[in-house]
Formats: sequence, structure tokens, C-alpha cells
Amino acid sequence: MPLMKAAVFVEKNRIILADKPIPDIGPLDALIRITTTTLCGTDVHILRGEYPVEKGLTIGHEPVGVIEKLGSQVKGFSEGQRVIAGAITPSGHSFACLCGCASQDGPDTPHGFRATGGWKFGNLIDGSQAEYLRVPDAMANLCAIPDHLSDEQVLMCPDIMSTGFSGAERGDVKIGDTVVVFALGPIGLCAVAGARLKGATSIIGVDTVPARMNVARSMGATHVVDFKQVDVVAHIMAITGGRGADVAIEALGTQATFEWALRVLRPGGTLSSLGVYSSDLTIPVTAFAAGLGDYSIVSTLCPGGKERMRRLMEVVSSGSVDLKPLVTHRFKLDDIEAAYELFAHQRDGVLKVAITP
Amino acid sequence: MPLMKAAVFVEKNRIILADKPIPDIGPLDALIRITTTTLCGTDVHILRGEYPVEKGLTIGHEPVGVIEKLGSQVKGFSEGQRVIAGAITPSGHSFACLCGCASQDGPDTPHGFRATGGWKFGNLIDGSQAEYLRVPDAMANLCAIPDHLSDEQVLMCPDIMSTGFSGAERGDVKIGDTVVVFALGPIGLCAVAGARLKGATSIIGVDTVPARMNVARSMGATHVVDFKQVDVVAHIMAITGGRGADVAIEALGTQATFEWALRVLRPGGTLSSLGVYSSDLTIPVTAFAAGLGDYSIVSTLCPGGKERMRRLMEVVSSGSVDLKPLVTHRFKLDDIEAAYELFAHQRDGVLKVAITP
Amino acid sequence: MPLMKAAVFVEKNRIILADKPIPDIGPLDALIRITTTTLCGTDVHILRGEYPVEKGLTIGHEPVGVIEKLGSQVKGFSEGQRVIAGAITPSGHSFACLCGCASQDGPDTPHGFRATGGWKFGNLIDGSQAEYLRVPDAMANLCAIPDHLSDEQVLMCPDIMSTGFSGAERGDVKIGDTVVVFALGPIGLCAVAGARLKGATSIIGVDTVPARMNVARSMGATHVVDFKQVDVVAHIMAITGGRGADVAIEALGTQATFEWALRVLRPGGTLSSLGVYSSDLTIPVTAFAAGLGDYSIVSTLCPGGKERMRRLMEVVSSGSVDLKPLVTHRFKLDDIEAAYELFAHQRDGVLKVAITP
Amino acid sequence: MPLMKAAVFVEKNRIILADKPIPDIGPLDALIRITTTTLCGTDVHILRGEYPVEKGLTIGHEPVGVIEKLGSQVKGFSEGQRVIAGAITPSGHSFACLCGCASQDGPDTPHGFRATGGWKFGNLIDGSQAEYLRVPDAMANLCAIPDHLSDEQVLMCPDIMSTGFSGAERGDVKIGDTVVVFALGPIGLCAVAGARLKGATSIIGVDTVPARMNVARSMGATHVVDFKQVDVVAHIMAITGGRGADVAIEALGTQATFEWALRVLRPGGTLSSLGVYSSDLTIPVTAFAAGLGDYSIVSTLCPGGKERMRRLMEVVSSGSVDLKPLVTHRFKLDDIEAAYELFAHQRDGVLKVAITP
Repeated sequence: MPLMKAAVFVEKNRIILADKPIPDIGPLDALIRITTTTLCGTDVHILRGEYPVEKGLTIGHEPVGVIEKLGSQVKGFSEGQRVIAGAITPSGHSFACLCGCASQDGPDTPHGFRATGGWKFGNLIDGSQAEYLRVPDAMANLCAIPDHLSDEQVLMCPDIMSTGFSGAERGDVKIGDTVVVFALGPIGLCAVAGARLKGATSIIGVDTVPARMNVARSMGATHVVDFKQVDVVAHIMAITGGRGADVAIEALGTQATFEWALRVLRPGGTLSSLGVYSSDLTIPVTAFAAGLGDYSIVSTLCPGGKERMRRLMEVVSSGSVDLKPLVTHRFKLDDIEAAYELFAHQRDGVLKVAITP
Repeated sequence: MPLMKAAVFVEKNRIILADKPIPDIGPLDALIRITTTTLCGTDVHILRGEYPVEKGLTIGHEPVGVIEKLGSQVKGFSEGQRVIAGAITPSGHSFACLCGCASQDGPDTPHGFRATGGWKFGNLIDGSQAEYLRVPDAMANLCAIPDHLSDEQVLMCPDIMSTGFSGAERGDVKIGDTVVVFALGPIGLCAVAGARLKGATSIIGVDTVPARMNVARSMGATHVVDFKQVDVVAHIMAITGGRGADVAIEALGTQATFEWALRVLRPGGTLSSLGVYSSDLTIPVTAFAAGLGDYSIVSTLCPGGKERMRRLMEVVSSGSVDLKPLVTHRFKLDDIEAAYELFAHQRDGVLKVAITP
Repeated sequence: MPLMKAAVFVEKNRIILADKPIPDIGPLDALIRITTTTLCGTDVHILRGEYPVEKGLTIGHEPVGVIEKLGSQVKGFSEGQRVIAGAITPSGHSFACLCGCASQDGPDTPHGFRATGGWKFGNLIDGSQAEYLRVPDAMANLCAIPDHLSDEQVLMCPDIMSTGFSGAERGDVKIGDTVVVFALGPIGLCAVAGARLKGATSIIGVDTVPARMNVARSMGATHVVDFKQVDVVAHIMAITGGRGADVAIEALGTQATFEWALRVLRPGGTLSSLGVYSSDLTIPVTAFAAGLGDYSIVSTLCPGGKERMRRLMEVVSSGSVDLKPLVTHRFKLDDIEAAYELFAHQRDGVLKVAITP
Repeated sequence: MPLMKAAVFVEKNRIILADKPIPDIGPLDALIRITTTTLCGTDVHILRGEYPVEKGLTIGHEPVGVIEKLGSQVKGFSEGQRVIAGAITPSGHSFACLCGCASQDGPDTPHGFRATGGWKFGNLIDGSQAEYLRVPDAMANLCAIPDHLSDEQVLMCPDIMSTGFSGAERGDVKIGDTVVVFALGPIGLCAVAGARLKGATSIIGVDTVPARMNVARSMGATHVVDFKQVDVVAHIMAITGGRGADVAIEALGTQATFEWALRVLRPGGTLSSLGVYSSDLTIPVTAFAAGLGDYSIVSTLCPGGKERMRRLMEVVSSGSVDLKPLVTHRFKLDDIEAAYELFAHQRDGVLKVAITP
């Protein structure tokens, strides 16, 4: 049985590089030889034991690679093709998928919904921080990379870009909107780009790290606010001339950012939540106009599937969003433990790390 | 200066019938002689001092009447016409109105949003529990009553029906949906009717008062659940075969109902909130799938304006919803203090009270 | 090789019952033993050579049956289960499916759209007017029939009900809308039911056959108009008090009905087209307000997939729509040629014909 | 009675500069002193007698100016303010406005729809090619110009930009869409900009005038196609790799462009029509997939109202769309007849003409 290198969750605070068998594939699967992958904030939650996964699982959900082998029933692809797959890999045939809710895919109930069930890589099955990856339901999930795009150019598509953009999409950003993005990590930065892509004319980024605030400006933020320097809510109300924001995007997963997002909204506005929360949230009654303010709060798990990947790569191809500044560091798979060390502690201005086997 | 009778807020726990001047009207206003009005749960909040209004204000926001006098600039109506106006009276010309958010109408900010600013009657200006009522922006708000409809048949249109239906509308109920309605007061009962009108095939009403549960069945509930008898969430998950609800409508304004509503949703489902909350709300992290469940939480203030009133009266005319069971008691305006006494204590199975001057 | 009976297209004006091999199935397919099926107007188009299909093809796209055999990769179903499948059987994994356009499924272009490509049964592959049927992509398409529903009760779900309802859904019928349905064959009757299910309060059915007009009333039409007796457009404008219809549903496929549909719309209204047209259509410039009337014209091919089937069976279960009056005649498969003779000539007040092997 | 200069329609092929009384205003109106206005293709239709208006009417619907006088009931504005108003001036209080269809505003039917009734300036009432303009329903329609924007910078907002953008908005352009724009006059150029603003990644402009094709590139077109040089449909299908366009925007008003727009759509795509048609349109049955292609055809009249104007000026302020290249010529009001001569014959590469009194 041939072996490969893979980053494996051993126990809380221990992800190590280990030898594992190269995955077998079934008739609907594909085997991908990974050429580039990356680490995600969610992987750090897993590392710290904040998000539970099984011991021995290979981590990672952002694959760029080459098709090594196709299942017997997979049509429309060929071995040797360069491809990506989304972090979320919907089957296409579940009740959830057919109900327009593919990220909540799954077989657990008779009618097929399972919260976050579409997120399989590095969560329910072995993930992409390895030399090889099994992609389930390959026909719904593989997407060929245009020749003129490099691995790094499409590395953000599987998760960061799809999630960030979805913050603007689910918030239904319209031409002329004012949008505030809370937290300018990679997801928040892509939310800024997504808001700009959808026609927002005033985009206010909130963070406290100068480097991130600068990248935000380069990706479309018209204002940046340092939450340590000012009263965030009052400052944003002033920027907007007292009107408030049409859409506020939460991209961190904390009570403070969630609550600010609600408080800066104009009545009738939308809080679009992308963060992963680790504790209960409070909706202050005043910020919610006692239930009478026509507010909406929407949450979104990263959209996946090959059509989504195709569109995101179209965005990259068009040059309208430049994600190169997001890849700040590069590591070999052999050094992934060092990459986790750097990334988990947010050292050296790290945004995203490219990992190559 | 001619006087009229009006129900006036004097201080906490005191609404009395008093003499007040018949209102003057401006060029865009209409003066309505009230023929029927009613009390709302919100009026009870005002009575108890839980919702602050100015002392001396006339209470009430559900007018049925006859045009007594039209402002000089009002076209399209004639004196003597029977009309209703919505509880919410948008101007039609504010930034909020033109932004699709008419209930949040208002002049307070340069760009015109004011939380709940469209709710004027019995809140910002004198209300309908009186012999006469000034209707602002009459052209946007008056709607002629079809001759074949009685006052009582249209009495629910200004608020109860508009609010209840909006619970189903904002939840975007679709053909074949499962909808749960939490609390079966008049608003919740209209939410049941609205869910049925929009094609829900499984409608689960939750309350504990048998009479209300029976009315719910007559208005379209396919199941009723007594929250004192069963574990509500487990019971509803069982009724839905483990799938959960597509839409859950909160029609009370408490943490318990809000939280149940969230917990019975399938991933990707929508909590449509109609209640008026008097304290902060908690979103349990587990019920929210840590932010990854594609959930939506939407809140709605009663839609108003004459087109809304026209449509609701069309529903009444069509016979598809019968709201007669909601008017359980009738009082003369002279006896409105007794009506408050009965209604505030929810005595004698009261649902709605018709008040006639 | 075991044989079965099947209704086969031989040449223009000849569909005959013939012996054909029972279909083989692949890993993703299911073999269904048909227990009930029916004829559709589209099948008559095929019979007459107006819609081209290959000679030797088995006709029919409305299957009710029992799972005889499951492909090796099909999970979530068991042999012996009673099931239906939609007339349209999307794969779930094409670009079209993942783009929200499943009826236009298909592998013909690199990015996967093919006009009407989701319609496979009796069009691209052998259909349901036979003893056995191969269902492709079974996991996306099979849906278990609740025990308490008979074959005839669910016989309209695969096509007639799904198509008719989609007329109201794509027209975005709202509570209080006025809807006109042109042609009251089975599809038009289901469009009437769909408009009612979505909250239309005024539903005007247009036809000239008294029996159909009567069924329309029983399914929710508030008015019926005989186009041979009155000036249709003037009459409908009068019924609507000069306002016109919010939505007009075309359910036949002719210039006359299409044009009437456009002419009865209020400015800003939607023409929702369900008909199959055999020649070019004209949009009269006056009916289109020279392009300045904010009109929408939308066309829809029957939505399929198991979630759609589940929801439609929920509607049947709920009792809110009764389609029993639509099945007017019953034939054995052995007599299907006589059934075609009756149905193609619309004899004896036929609406739909149940065929049982 | 003080007089002013105004461009008046006298008879077919004659618009002349004449003296007319400065308009009186009512309580809800405002009088604007025009500082800049422009000519529109629609004005040329009026000149040629192709669009009928009353003799003696002042032409023009694109006003930039200063508030000279406010009606007694107008609040929220002050005399001397620089303002624009949209080409379409909805009242805010009609049934049409309250039904979400403000451009079809009007009092003609009891329920208030009138095709194109929101277009008043230079159509139903005197227009903007004059020294002074009466703006009806001023509170709904005036919008203050930010100090840092010049007249010419906001001159496209009232019509060209609002109409062009609406082509992309009504087509519901999404991130990653392919959009084709047919005809690259000022409206089509703004449709290109609108498609880009909403996230289209492939934008194909079709025309034959090199200068317009160049401006299209500068406004976001990724491809331009000269319809005289190639087979338009085949060429666009090739550019899109056989997939076709998600959205096709018609910006001229002819059968050829309408039909091309339909033929380049992918199944399920949307034809968004902006053109003013002078004769009947044909939908070829093959281009419409016989009604089974899930196509949508939507038409739009320029959205107006002060919120729309505010948002469009925000777009100008943000710098994301630069419309300066559209103003190619400048004339004094005294020379407006020469401006019509140039503009009507499309001489000298004219796109838009700024007129200053």
C-alpha cells in the first residue's frame, strides 16, 4: 500500500506530518495529487481543540492539484488535468442540495439536511494538507483551472474568496450601498473585495492591524477604522452622515464584532455573518429596535461546487480582484508544522501561507 | 374649538377617556371620523409603561372610519368615503420609503431613516381610539373600503393581518414548506393564515390556550402543540420527521419563543420575528451551528400604505381568510377603560375587541 | 433478454405498443416497474411529428412505480419502495444544475448547458409508457411516495402539477395579486391551483370548454371567461376595474393566448409562459409600451428532482389541492393506442388518462 | 409675467428656442433654475414625431440646477441648494409607487397604474431644456448635489446612468456572469459600467462605431464586437466557449439587436431590454427553445426618485465609474437648435451634449 505525507490531527495542540496510505477511490470519486494548499483559521480552531474532529484525520480544505485518477463513473474530466475543488463539496443529489442549500448537505435525516454537512474535507473525511486527496462526488466538485492561472492565483478560490464574497452576496449588496466589514483577516479582505464587486460605493473596514488595513484599502475599502482608536459605532455613524450602513459583514466570530455590526446598521439593514462563533451571542434589544427595525441577520457557510469555483476563477482571470497580497508566506509540506506555528500565532504579518508538497 | 372623546395615556397604568380638540388638518392630511377601532397588545405595553409615549397622547393605530375632511392638496378621495389606513403611515417620499423600507420612515437623519418612524398613530402623533383621527400623507395611506365589507371585516387589516402575513412573507414561505408559529394570539393566528396563503403544507401552531389552538386549526394550522405538555423542540422535530422547519415565526417577543424558533429550523431555514422584545435576546451557539448553518433571522414592522391595505381587503373579500373569530368582544368608546381592563388581563378568552364611538 | 411492453414512436402519426428489452441499468440508475403513468399534450406533439424524437423511442415522462432494482452506487432507497420521478431528471452535478437551472441540464457544451437537456424521459432516453423504466441519476430523482397516497393521487406530480405551479412561482404571485390563466387544460388548471396556493385573491381562467371552466372554479378560479363570447382583453380589464393583472399565465402555446396575456397585464406585470410554441411569437409594440412598461416575460420548463416531488406530494397530502377531477379516463397499457386516439382528439371531455400496465 | 427661454416642440422636425412664462408652482412643487441639462435620444424621437407629445411642450428630462423656490409644503430642502431630479419623477403616493413600480406611476385608473406615467418632464409636463423647471412632488424627487461634484459629473444621473445601470440590475447580473450589451450609445455604455459594477467578469459590447467601442473598453468591456465584421451570434458563442451569456442587454430598440440578444443567451438566461421600440418585435421560436428554455425577458423604464439619485451620485463620488468621456460637446441654451442638429445626426462622434443656460 503506497504511502504519502499528510498533516494529521493527533490531539489538542498537535497536528503533525505523518505517513498515511494514499486514499482509495470509489466510482464517483477522484484522486487529486495536491500541488498547492493552505492553512485556514478554522484549521487553527481544530488544532486548539475548539472545533472537534476525529483523531488521525488529515486536515485542510483548500486543494489545488492535478487529477491522478478518476472513478469509473466520473465523466467530463481527464487524468492529468489541473483542478481545484471547493472547501465545501456538495453531492448535488441530496434534499439539501436540491432545496438550494448545498452547504448543509447530508444523509443524516430522511430528508437530508445536516448542519455544515457539505463541509467534508478535513472535517468529515481526510483533507488537503497531504500529497493526495480523495474528492467525493467529483463531477459536482472538480473544476478545471484555466492554463493562464497559477496555483497561487486560484488558491483562495476554494474557501477564502468563496466565503468572503458570500458575505456581500447574502447581504444583497446593491449599487450605491454603504458596507462595513468587521475584521480584516483573509475572509474580511475578500468580503471587502466582494462588496466592491457588487457595487458598494462606501466600504468601511474595521481592524487594528495597520498592514491589514492597508491591504483593505488596496482591495476596495474607502475608509478604514481602527477599533482601538475610536468609538467604532459613533465613528461609523459619523462617516455615513448619520444614515448607518446598508450591510454590515461580520468576519471574525466574536460578540463585539457581531454587536458592532448590528449597531451600525440603518433600520432595514442586513448583518451578514461569516464568523465561526465559539460562544452564545447576544442581540441587544436597543440595537434590534425591540424587534421593530426590519433588520435581517444572515449567516453563510462557504458555497462550493464546480460552478462556484468556475465563477471565482473567472473573477481572478478578469483581474478585477487581485489576491496576490494575501499569500504572505510559502512553505513545503515537509515544513507544515512550522507553518502552523507561524500561522496560529499570526506572526510576521502573515495572512495566508502557501503549502507545496 | 369642538371637542371629541379620546383614549389618552396619562401615566403608567392609566389610560383614560378624555375630551380633546378635534384635530386640525394640513394640506396633505385627512380627518377621519372613526367608526370602529380596536386595542392592540402594543397599547397594553404603553399602558404599562413598557413602551414610552408622551403623556396626553391619544392611543390606538387601527382605524376604520369615514372621511370627514380632506386637506387642500389631497386628490383621489372624497369626503364621506369609508376608508381604512394602516397602523404604519409612510410618507411615500422619504429616503427610507424610496429605499424599500417604508416602515422605517422619517426625517431624523439627513438621509431619512428613523427606526420605527413609520409608526405614527398612537406613538408619534395622536391615534385612533377617539372620535376623530388626523391621517398624515393621506394620499399614500387612505384606502377605500369596498361596499360589501363591514367595518369588523376590515378591522384587522391595519395591523394584525398586515403584521401576521408579513411574518410569512418575510420568511419567504414557499409551496410545500413546513412553518411553525410560536404564540397564537391575533398576530400569530394571522401568521398561520399567511403561511397557508403562501402555500405552506405543514403549519404547526404552538401555544397553551386551547381556545387559541382551536382557532389556529380553523385558520390553517395542520398541527398544534401545547408547550406546557411536551418538549416543544423534540416534538416538532418528530412531527417533521427529523427535517425541521423551513420557516419559524416568532409572534410573542420572548427569549423562550425566539430560541425555540431557532432550534426547530432546518439548516438554511429562516426565523421570521414579529414579536416586540423588552429585553436582550440570546442566540445559543449550538442552535446557530456556530454561525455555519446558513440560518436567517429577519424582523418586520407591520407594512402600511394604501396598496397594502387594498391587498389585505382583497384577501378578506375573496373569503380565503376568515378573521371573524378574532373579534371576541365589542365595546363602545365610552367604555374603553373597561375594554382595556379586559384586554390587558386577557380575560374571558379575549382575542380582539371592537370599539365603536 | 427479458422483454416488456412499451409505447414506441414509429413514425409521424404512429405510436404503437411493442415489445422491447427491459432496460439495463448502470451504477447510478434505478429500474422502476411502472404501476401508473399517463399521456401528456407533449406526447401528442411527438405523435404528430411536431416535436422530433428518434424512431423507436419509448414515449412518456410521468412515472409512478416500484423500485425493481437499484444501481450499485445508489444509496438511500430500497428495492420494493413505491416512488415517483419528475418528468425532468436533472443530474444534480452539471454546471446548469449548480447554476440554479436544472431543467437545462446537459453535457453538450464545456460548461454544461443544453436547452431542455433535463427532459430525458421520452425525449432523449426511453420513457415511462412501458412496463419498466430506467431512471438516471436515481439519487437526485427518485422520491418515495407516502403510504397513504394512491398512485392516481401522485400521478400529476411529475409534470402537470410541477409545471402548472411553476407558472405561478416564476410569475412571483403575491398575496392579493390578480392572476389570469389562459387555457384551462391540465397545466392551466394546475396554474390556477398554484396561483391560489401562493395567495392570489382574484384568479381569472380563460377557455371556452364549459367542463374545464367548471373544474377551474373548483380549483380556485374566482372568474372564468369564455374567449368565444367576449372581447377577452376588454372583459378582463373591466373585471379588474381597469387595473389589469399582476401576473398572466400562458398555458397553451399560441400567439393569441400569448398576446392576450401581455395585453391584460398592468404596467410592471409579469407574463409567465408555460406553453410549447410551434411558431414565432410577436410582441405587439403597443402591448409592450414600446419597451418602457417594466414588463417581464418569463418561460419555464417543468422543475424536477426529488425535493420538488417531495413538496408536491406534501401539497397532495395536505389536501389543499385536489387533482382527482383531472383523471377522467383509465386504460390498461395494452390499450394505450386507444388512449392516444381519445386523448389526441380531446374526445369525451378528457383531461388526463391514467395508464396501468 | 416673467419669461424664460425654453426648447419647445412645435411640430414634427421642429424644436425651437422660444419664450415661455416661468412656471408657477404649487404647494408640493419646487422651481429649479437649470444650470446644466442635455439632450436624449428620446428627444430626437420626439423631434421626428416618432413619439407623440403636445405641441408647445418644453422638451428635456435631465435637469441639474439650483432651487429657486419651494412650494409651501415642501420640507427638507432650502432655496439656493444645488440639486438634480430624475428623468422619472414618481409621486411616492400612487398605488404604482407603493406596489414597487414607481416608473409606472399615475392617476389614470382607480388603482393608479399608467404605463410610463412616471415620466413627466418633457412628456406630460414641461421639461428641463429651459431656464426654469417645475419639479412635481419635490420631496420625493429633489436630491442635493454633494459640493465636490460638478454639474457635468452628475448630468448623466437623471437618465443615462439610471437607465443603463438598471439594465444590469433588472438582469440580476451576478459575480462571474458573462454579459453582452447590444449598442454602445450612452445608455449601452452605462449598461457596460453597470454590469461591471455588479460583478460581471466577461462583458461583451456590440456596436460598429470604433470610438464607442473604445469608450466601452474604458468603461469595463472585456471584449468588443463589430456587428458589421462578424456573425455576431456565432462570434459571441465562440467567445463564451459555447456557453452563451448569462445576461444580454438590449440598448437600442430594434428587432435585430433584440433577436441577437435572445440568441446569445444560455438557457435560463435573461434578456434585459432598455431600448425604445417603434414597431412590433418577433421572438423566433428556435431562439426561445419553443418556450422551454427558462428564458426571461425583462424591460425597464429609467428608475427615478431622490434615493436613486443619491445612490448614483455616490457612484460618481466613489470614482468607480467615470462618465466624463460621455460629454463630448457643449452648447449654450441659446444654441440648442444647433445642438439638436448635431445630436440628431450623430455628427462628430457625439455621445452627450451639455447645455447651459
